[in-house]
Amino acid sequence: MRGCFITLEGVEGVGKTTNLEYIHQRLQAAGITVVVTREPGGTAMAEEIRELLLRQRTESVAEMAELLLMFAARAQHLHALITPSLEQGHWVLCDRFTDATYAYQGGGRGVPLSLISTLESMVQASLRPDLTLLLDLPVEQGLERARNRSTPDRFEAEKQRFFEAVREVYLDRAMAEPERFAVIDASLDLEQVQQQIRVQLQQRLGVTPV
Amino acid sequence: MRGCFITLEGVEGVGKTTNLEYIHQRLQAAGITVVVTREPGGTAMAEEIRELLLRQRTESVAEMAELLLMFAARAQHLHALITPSLEQGHWVLCDRFTDATYAYQGGGRGVPLSLISTLESMVQASLRPDLTLLLDLPVEQGLERARNRSTPDRFEAEKQRFFEAVREVYLDRAMAEPERFAVIDASLDLEQVQQQIRVQLQQRLGVTPV
Repeated sequence: MRGCFITLEGVEGVGKTTNLEYIHQRLQAAGITVVVTREPGGTAMAEEIRELLLRQRTESVAEMAELLLMFAARAQHLHALITPSLEQGHWVLCDRFTDATYAYQGGGRGVPLSLISTLESMVQASLRPDLTLLLDLPVEQGLERARNRSTPDRFEAEKQRFFEAVREVYLDRAMAEPERFAVIDASLDLEQVQQQIRVQLQQRLGVTPV
Repeated sequence: MRGCFITLEGVEGVGKTTNLEYIHQRLQAAGITVVVTREPGGTAMAEEIRELLLRQRTESVAEMAELLLMFAARAQHLHALITPSLEQGHWVLCDRFTDATYAYQGGGRGVPLSLISTLESMVQASLRPDLTLLLDLPVEQGLERARNRSTPDRFEAEKQRFFEAVREVYLDRAMAEPERFAVIDASLDLEQVQQQIRVQLQQRLGVTPV
Protein backbone atom coordinates (compact mmCIF):
# COMPACT_ATOMS: atom_id res chain seq x y z
CA MET A 1 0.00 0.00 0.00
CA ARG A 2 1.21 3.46 -0.92
CA GLY A 3 2.53 5.56 1.97
CA CYS A 4 1.22 8.97 3.04
CA PHE A 5 2.92 12.15 1.92
CA ILE A 6 2.93 14.85 4.63
CA THR A 7 4.37 18.33 4.16
CA LEU A 8 5.08 20.98 6.78
CA GLU A 9 4.85 24.65 5.81
CA GLY A 10 5.19 28.06 7.43
CA VAL A 11 7.26 31.24 7.44
CA GLU A 12 10.47 31.83 9.41
CA GLY A 13 10.29 31.82 13.22
CA VAL A 14 7.20 29.65 13.34
CA GLY A 15 8.85 26.60 14.93
CA LYS A 16 9.09 24.38 11.88
CA THR A 17 12.24 22.48 12.91
CA THR A 18 11.00 21.58 16.39
CA ASN A 19 7.61 20.45 15.13
CA LEU A 20 9.04 18.46 12.22
CA GLU A 21 10.95 16.41 14.78
CA TYR A 22 7.80 16.06 16.90
CA ILE A 23 5.74 14.78 13.92
CA HIS A 24 8.53 12.35 13.08
CA GLN A 25 8.46 10.95 16.63
CA ARG A 26 4.65 10.63 16.60
CA LEU A 27 4.70 8.68 13.35
CA GLN A 28 7.51 6.41 14.57
CA ALA A 29 5.59 5.82 17.83
CA ALA A 30 2.68 4.64 15.66
CA GLY A 31 4.95 2.06 14.02
CA ILE A 32 5.22 3.89 10.69
CA THR A 33 8.42 3.90 8.62
CA VAL A 34 9.07 7.57 7.83
CA VAL A 35 11.45 9.20 5.38
CA VAL A 36 12.17 12.73 6.62
CA THR A 37 13.35 15.11 3.92
CA ARG A 38 13.31 18.76 2.88
CA GLU A 39 12.97 21.12 -0.06
CA PRO A 40 14.80 22.38 -1.92
CA GLY A 41 17.03 19.31 -1.56
CA GLY A 42 16.53 15.77 -0.33
CA THR A 43 18.91 13.96 -2.70
CA ALA A 44 22.61 14.57 -3.42
CA MET A 45 21.83 16.28 -6.73
CA ALA A 46 18.86 18.26 -5.39
CA GLU A 47 21.04 19.45 -2.48
CA GLU A 48 23.59 20.70 -5.03
CA ILE A 49 20.77 22.68 -6.66
CA ARG A 50 19.79 24.01 -3.22
CA GLU A 51 23.34 25.14 -2.57
CA LEU A 52 23.38 26.86 -5.96
CA LEU A 53 20.07 28.61 -5.14
CA LEU A 54 21.07 29.80 -1.67
CA ARG A 55 24.65 30.87 -2.40
CA GLN A 56 25.30 34.61 -2.11
CA ARG A 57 26.38 35.98 -5.50
CA THR A 58 27.10 39.33 -7.14
CA GLU A 59 25.33 38.26 -10.37
CA SER A 60 21.69 39.41 -10.42
CA VAL A 61 19.55 36.24 -10.44
CA ALA A 62 16.58 36.01 -12.84
CA GLU A 63 13.32 35.19 -11.04
CA MET A 64 12.61 32.63 -13.76
CA ALA A 65 15.99 30.93 -13.21
CA GLU A 66 15.25 30.69 -9.49
CA LEU A 67 11.79 29.25 -10.15
CA LEU A 68 13.07 26.66 -12.64
CA LEU A 69 15.90 25.61 -10.32
CA MET A 70 13.35 25.11 -7.57
CA PHE A 71 11.27 22.83 -9.77
CA ALA A 72 14.35 21.05 -11.17
CA ALA A 73 15.32 20.15 -7.60
CA ARG A 74 11.72 19.04 -6.97
CA ALA A 75 11.62 16.85 -10.10
CA GLN A 76 14.82 15.14 -8.96
CA HIS A 77 13.58 14.79 -5.37
CA LEU A 78 10.35 13.16 -6.57
CA HIS A 79 12.18 10.87 -8.99
CA ALA A 80 14.95 9.68 -6.71
CA LEU A 81 13.39 9.76 -3.24
CA ILE A 82 9.73 10.74 -2.68
CA THR A 83 7.95 8.60 -5.30
CA PRO A 84 9.98 5.41 -4.73
CA SER A 85 9.58 5.78 -0.96
CA LEU A 86 5.79 6.20 -1.20
CA GLU A 87 5.59 3.24 -3.59
CA GLN A 88 7.48 1.08 -1.07
CA GLY A 89 4.78 1.96 1.46
CA HIS A 90 6.96 4.32 3.51
CA TRP A 91 5.53 7.63 4.66
CA VAL A 92 7.34 10.78 3.56
CA LEU A 93 7.53 13.84 5.80
CA CYS A 94 8.86 16.84 3.90
CA ASP A 95 9.99 20.21 5.28
CA ARG A 96 8.39 22.52 2.67
CA PHE A 97 7.08 21.60 -0.77
CA THR A 98 5.24 23.28 -3.65
CA ASP A 99 3.03 25.40 -1.38
CA ALA A 100 6.25 27.18 -0.36
CA THR A 101 6.95 27.99 -4.02
CA TYR A 102 3.49 29.54 -4.34
CA ALA A 103 4.00 31.46 -1.08
CA TYR A 104 7.61 32.66 -1.49
CA GLN A 105 8.14 32.98 -5.25
CA GLY A 106 4.49 33.77 -5.96
CA GLY A 107 3.39 35.83 -2.95
CA GLY A 108 6.78 37.17 -1.88
CA ARG A 109 8.43 37.80 -5.24
CA GLY A 110 5.38 38.35 -7.41
CA VAL A 111 5.91 35.47 -9.88
CA PRO A 112 2.49 34.80 -11.50
CA LEU A 113 0.77 31.90 -9.71
CA SER A 114 -0.39 30.51 -13.09
CA LEU A 115 3.26 29.99 -14.06
CA ILE A 116 3.89 28.07 -10.83
CA SER A 117 0.77 26.03 -11.49
CA THR A 118 1.97 25.10 -15.01
CA LEU A 119 5.30 23.90 -13.63
CA GLU A 120 3.57 22.04 -10.79
CA SER A 121 1.52 20.00 -13.30
CA MET A 122 4.57 19.42 -15.47
CA VAL A 123 6.73 18.11 -12.62
CA GLN A 124 4.21 16.43 -10.31
CA ALA A 125 1.44 15.30 -12.67
CA SER A 126 -1.35 14.51 -10.16
CA LEU A 127 0.86 14.02 -7.09
CA ARG A 128 -0.09 16.28 -4.16
CA PRO A 129 0.57 15.89 -0.41
CA ASP A 130 -2.04 13.87 1.49
CA LEU A 131 -1.75 16.28 4.40
CA THR A 132 -0.13 19.71 4.65
CA LEU A 133 0.36 21.09 8.15
CA LEU A 134 0.62 24.89 7.97
CA LEU A 135 2.17 26.45 11.07
CA ASP A 136 0.58 29.88 11.11
CA LEU A 137 1.62 32.91 13.15
CA PRO A 138 1.06 36.66 12.69
CA VAL A 139 4.14 37.95 10.84
CA GLU A 140 4.97 40.60 13.43
CA GLN A 141 5.08 37.91 16.11
CA GLY A 142 7.36 35.66 14.02
CA LEU A 143 9.76 38.50 13.29
CA GLU A 144 9.78 39.51 16.94
CA ARG A 145 10.74 36.01 17.96
CA ALA A 146 13.62 36.26 15.49
CA ARG A 147 14.89 39.79 16.02
CA ASN A 148 14.81 40.04 19.81
CA ARG A 149 12.58 43.16 19.84
CA SER A 150 15.02 45.66 18.32
CA THR A 151 13.39 48.66 16.55
CA PRO A 152 12.57 47.66 12.95
CA ASP A 153 14.72 49.43 10.33
CA ARG A 154 13.79 49.95 6.67
CA PHE A 155 14.98 46.48 5.77
CA GLU A 156 12.95 44.96 8.62
CA ALA A 157 9.84 46.80 7.38
CA GLU A 158 10.52 45.45 3.86
CA LYS A 159 10.86 42.00 5.34
CA GLN A 160 7.55 42.37 7.13
CA ARG A 161 5.68 43.24 3.87
CA PHE A 162 7.40 40.30 2.15
CA PHE A 163 6.37 37.84 4.85
CA GLU A 164 2.82 39.26 4.99
CA ALA A 165 2.49 38.40 1.28
CA VAL A 166 3.96 34.93 1.87
CA ARG A 167 1.56 34.28 4.74
CA GLU A 168 -1.41 35.51 2.74
CA VAL A 169 -0.76 33.01 -0.07
CA TYR A 170 -0.31 30.19 2.45
CA LEU A 171 -3.66 31.04 4.09
CA ASP A 172 -5.42 31.45 0.72
CA ARG A 173 -4.26 28.00 -0.31
CA ALA A 174 -5.33 26.49 3.02
CA MET A 175 -8.77 28.03 2.58
CA ALA A 176 -9.07 26.72 -0.98
CA GLU A 177 -8.08 23.14 -0.07
CA PRO A 178 -9.38 22.48 3.46
CA GLU A 179 -9.36 18.71 2.88
CA ARG A 180 -5.59 18.78 2.36
CA PHE A 181 -4.51 21.60 4.68
CA ALA A 182 -4.58 21.71 8.47
CA VAL A 183 -3.81 25.19 9.81
CA ILE A 184 -2.04 25.03 13.16
CA ASP A 185 -2.10 28.10 15.41
CA ALA A 186 1.60 28.48 16.14
CA SER A 187 1.16 31.51 18.41
CA LEU A 188 0.28 29.25 21.35
CA ASP A 189 2.64 27.44 23.75
CA LEU A 190 4.61 24.55 22.27
CA GLU A 191 2.52 21.98 24.17
CA GLN A 192 -0.69 23.44 22.72
CA VAL A 193 0.81 23.56 19.22
CA GLN A 194 1.78 19.90 19.49
CA GLN A 195 -1.64 18.96 20.77
CA GLN A 196 -3.19 20.45 17.63
CA ILE A 197 -0.71 18.45 15.54
CA ARG A 198 -1.55 15.23 17.40
CA VAL A 199 -5.27 15.79 16.82
CA GLN A 200 -4.79 16.44 13.09
CA LEU A 201 -2.57 13.38 12.63
CA GLN A 202 -5.13 11.23 14.40
CA GLN A 203 -8.30 12.61 12.81
CA ARG A 204 -7.00 12.87 9.26
CA LEU A 205 -4.60 9.95 8.99
CA GLY A 206 -5.55 7.75 11.94
CA VAL A 207 -2.12 8.09 13.57
CA THR A 208 -2.16 6.89 17.19
CA PRO A 209 0.76 5.43 19.19
CA VAL A 210 0.80 1.62 19.05
CA MET B 1 19.75 49.61 -32.54
CA ARG B 2 19.30 46.09 -31.22
CA GLY B 3 22.12 43.67 -32.16
CA CYS B 4 21.69 40.39 -34.05
CA PHE B 5 21.44 37.10 -32.21
CA ILE B 6 23.18 34.25 -34.06
CA THR B 7 23.25 30.64 -32.88
CA LEU B 8 25.39 27.75 -34.10
CA GLU B 9 24.01 24.22 -33.92
CA GLY B 10 25.05 20.70 -34.88
CA VAL B 11 25.90 17.28 -33.48
CA GLU B 12 29.31 16.16 -32.23
CA GLY B 13 32.18 15.93 -34.74
CA VAL B 14 30.66 18.48 -37.09
CA GLY B 15 33.32 21.18 -36.62
CA LYS B 16 31.38 23.53 -34.38
CA THR B 17 34.36 24.95 -32.44
CA THR B 18 36.43 25.78 -35.54
CA ASN B 19 33.52 27.41 -37.32
CA LEU B 20 32.38 29.38 -34.27
CA GLU B 21 35.80 31.00 -34.24
CA TYR B 22 35.57 31.61 -37.99
CA ILE B 23 32.17 33.35 -37.67
CA HIS B 24 33.53 35.43 -34.82
CA GLN B 25 36.44 36.61 -37.00
CA ARG B 26 34.13 37.43 -39.94
CA LEU B 27 31.89 39.55 -37.73
CA GLN B 28 34.85 41.36 -36.17
CA ALA B 29 36.31 41.98 -39.64
CA ALA B 30 32.99 43.67 -40.50
CA GLY B 31 33.47 46.03 -37.55
CA ILE B 32 30.79 44.40 -35.38
CA THR B 33 31.13 44.10 -31.59
CA VAL B 34 30.43 40.44 -30.83
CA VAL B 35 29.75 38.67 -27.55
CA VAL B 36 30.69 35.01 -27.98
CA THR B 37 29.01 32.67 -25.53
CA ARG B 38 27.69 29.13 -25.12
CA GLU B 39 24.88 27.01 -23.71
CA PRO B 40 24.39 25.65 -21.22
CA GLY B 41 26.44 28.37 -19.52
CA GLY B 42 27.57 31.87 -20.43
CA THR B 43 27.41 33.50 -16.98
CA ALA B 44 29.04 32.45 -13.69
CA MET B 45 25.75 31.07 -12.34
CA ALA B 46 24.72 29.42 -15.62
CA GLU B 47 28.17 27.77 -15.82
CA GLU B 48 27.57 26.37 -12.32
CA ILE B 49 24.32 24.87 -13.61
CA ARG B 50 26.22 23.47 -16.62
CA GLU B 51 28.74 21.85 -14.32
CA LEU B 52 25.89 20.35 -12.28
CA LEU B 53 24.29 19.00 -15.49
CA LEU B 54 27.44 17.48 -16.95
CA ARG B 55 28.93 15.99 -13.75
CA GLN B 56 29.08 12.19 -13.66
CA ARG B 57 26.91 10.92 -10.80
CA THR B 58 25.63 7.61 -9.44
CA GLU B 59 22.17 9.10 -8.74
CA SER B 60 19.75 8.45 -11.61
CA VAL B 61 18.84 11.86 -13.07
CA ALA B 62 15.19 12.63 -13.87
CA GLU B 63 14.69 13.77 -17.47
CA MET B 64 12.47 16.56 -16.18
CA ALA B 65 15.19 17.75 -13.79
CA GLU B 66 17.67 17.85 -16.67
CA LEU B 67 15.23 19.78 -18.86
CA LEU B 68 14.41 22.33 -16.15
CA LEU B 69 18.09 22.84 -15.32
CA MET B 70 18.74 23.51 -19.00
CA PHE B 71 16.03 26.18 -19.09
CA ALA B 72 17.07 27.61 -15.71
CA ALA B 73 20.57 28.14 -17.13
CA ARG B 74 18.99 29.69 -20.25
CA ALA B 75 16.79 32.07 -18.23
CA GLN B 76 19.85 33.26 -16.34
CA HIS B 77 21.95 33.55 -19.53
CA LEU B 78 19.24 35.66 -21.20
CA HIS B 79 18.77 37.85 -18.12
CA ALA B 80 22.41 38.49 -17.29
CA LEU B 81 24.14 38.40 -20.69
CA ILE B 82 22.21 37.89 -23.95
CA THR B 83 19.36 40.40 -23.58
CA PRO B 84 21.45 43.27 -22.14
CA SER B 85 24.12 42.71 -24.84
CA LEU B 86 21.55 42.80 -27.67
CA GLU B 87 19.95 45.90 -26.15
CA GLN B 88 23.35 47.64 -26.12
CA GLY B 89 23.56 46.96 -29.86
CA HIS B 90 26.18 44.21 -29.58
CA TRP B 91 25.77 41.04 -31.60
CA VAL B 92 25.60 37.76 -29.71
CA LEU B 93 27.07 34.56 -31.16
CA CYS B 94 26.01 31.54 -29.13
CA ASP B 95 27.33 27.97 -29.31
CA ARG B 96 24.01 26.07 -29.09
CA PHE B 97 20.66 27.37 -27.89
CA THR B 98 17.07 26.12 -27.63
CA ASP B 99 17.20 24.16 -30.90
CA ALA B 100 19.73 21.93 -29.15
CA THR B 101 17.20 21.27 -26.37
CA TYR B 102 14.63 20.21 -28.97
CA ALA B 103 17.22 18.04 -30.72
CA TYR B 104 18.97 16.40 -27.73
CA GLN B 105 16.32 16.25 -24.99
CA GLY B 106 13.41 15.99 -27.44
CA GLY B 107 14.84 13.92 -30.31
CA GLY B 108 17.57 12.08 -28.42
CA ARG B 109 15.88 11.45 -25.06
CA GLY B 110 12.24 11.44 -26.14
CA VAL B 111 11.01 14.37 -24.01
CA PRO B 112 7.73 15.60 -25.62
CA LEU B 113 8.45 18.57 -27.89
CA SER B 114 5.30 20.31 -26.60
CA LEU B 115 6.85 20.41 -23.12
CA ILE B 116 10.00 22.02 -24.51
CA SER B 117 7.85 24.49 -26.41
CA THR B 118 5.96 25.48 -23.22
CA LEU B 119 9.24 26.13 -21.41
CA GLU B 120 10.64 28.03 -24.40
CA SER B 121 7.69 30.48 -24.31
CA MET B 122 7.94 30.77 -20.54
CA VAL B 123 11.65 31.62 -20.56
CA GLN B 124 12.14 33.45 -23.85
CA ALA B 125 8.73 35.09 -24.47
CA SER B 126 9.08 36.09 -28.15
CA LEU B 127 12.90 36.06 -28.33
CA ARG B 128 14.30 33.79 -31.04
CA PRO B 129 17.68 33.82 -32.83
CA ASP B 130 17.84 36.06 -35.93
CA LEU B 131 19.96 33.43 -37.68
CA THR B 132 20.70 29.82 -36.78
CA LEU B 133 23.53 28.15 -38.65
CA LEU B 134 23.06 24.38 -38.59
CA LEU B 135 26.23 22.44 -39.39
CA ASP B 136 24.86 19.25 -40.89
CA LEU B 137 26.66 15.98 -41.51
CA PRO B 138 25.47 12.38 -41.91
CA VAL B 139 25.76 10.84 -38.42
CA GLU B 140 27.95 7.95 -39.56
CA GLN B 141 30.46 10.43 -40.97
CA GLY B 142 30.51 12.50 -37.75
CA LEU B 143 31.04 9.44 -35.58
CA GLU B 144 33.78 8.18 -37.91
CA ARG B 145 35.60 11.48 -37.57
CA ALA B 146 35.40 11.04 -33.80
CA ARG B 147 36.15 7.34 -33.35
CA ASN B 148 39.05 6.88 -35.74
CA ARG B 149 37.31 4.13 -37.73
CA SER B 150 37.27 1.39 -35.04
CA THR B 151 34.53 -1.26 -35.37
CA PRO B 152 31.36 0.01 -33.72
CA ASP B 153 30.38 -1.89 -30.55
CA ARG B 154 26.87 -2.05 -29.03
CA PHE B 155 27.36 1.31 -27.33
CA GLU B 156 28.51 2.89 -30.61
CA ALA B 157 25.40 1.56 -32.36
CA GLU B 158 23.25 3.03 -29.57
CA LYS B 159 25.06 6.29 -30.02
CA GLN B 160 24.37 6.24 -33.72
CA ARG B 161 20.59 5.84 -33.21
CA PHE B 162 20.67 8.63 -30.63
CA PHE B 163 22.47 11.03 -32.96
CA GLU B 164 20.22 10.08 -35.89
CA ALA B 165 17.24 11.19 -33.80
CA VAL B 166 19.05 14.40 -32.81
CA ARG B 167 19.90 15.19 -36.43
CA GLU B 168 16.36 14.49 -37.57
CA VAL B 169 14.90 17.05 -35.15
CA TYR B 170 17.49 19.62 -36.19
CA LEU B 171 16.61 19.11 -39.87
CA ASP B 172 12.85 19.16 -39.18
CA ARG B 173 13.20 22.48 -37.43
CA ALA B 174 15.35 23.90 -40.22
CA MET B 175 12.70 22.85 -42.75
CA ALA B 176 9.90 24.42 -40.66
CA GLU B 177 11.70 27.77 -40.27
CA PRO B 178 13.75 28.38 -43.41
CA GLU B 179 13.80 32.16 -42.80
CA ARG B 180 15.71 31.62 -39.53
CA PHE B 181 17.80 28.52 -40.31
CA ALA B 182 20.70 28.18 -42.73
CA VAL B 183 21.75 24.55 -43.20
CA ILE B 184 25.49 24.27 -43.89
CA ASP B 185 26.79 21.09 -45.54
CA ALA B 186 29.58 20.19 -43.12
CA SER B 187 30.66 17.10 -45.06
CA LEU B 188 32.73 19.28 -47.44
CA ASP B 189 36.28 20.59 -46.98
CA LEU B 190 36.70 23.28 -44.33
CA GLU B 191 37.24 25.97 -47.01
CA GLN B 192 33.96 25.04 -48.70
CA VAL B 193 32.12 24.96 -45.34
CA GLN B 194 33.42 28.42 -44.54
CA GLN B 195 32.44 29.74 -47.95
CA GLN B 196 28.85 28.66 -47.28
CA ILE B 197 28.99 30.45 -43.91
CA ARG B 198 30.36 33.64 -45.56
CA VAL B 199 27.54 33.59 -48.12
CA GLN B 200 24.85 33.14 -45.46
CA LEU B 201 26.25 35.91 -43.25
CA GLN B 202 26.34 38.25 -46.22
CA GLN B 203 22.98 37.39 -47.78
CA ARG B 204 20.98 37.20 -44.57
CA LEU B 205 22.62 39.78 -42.34
CA GLY B 206 24.63 41.90 -44.79
CA VAL B 207 27.96 41.00 -43.15
CA THR B 208 30.93 41.96 -45.39
CA PRO B 209 34.45 42.89 -44.25
CA VAL B 210 34.86 46.67 -43.93
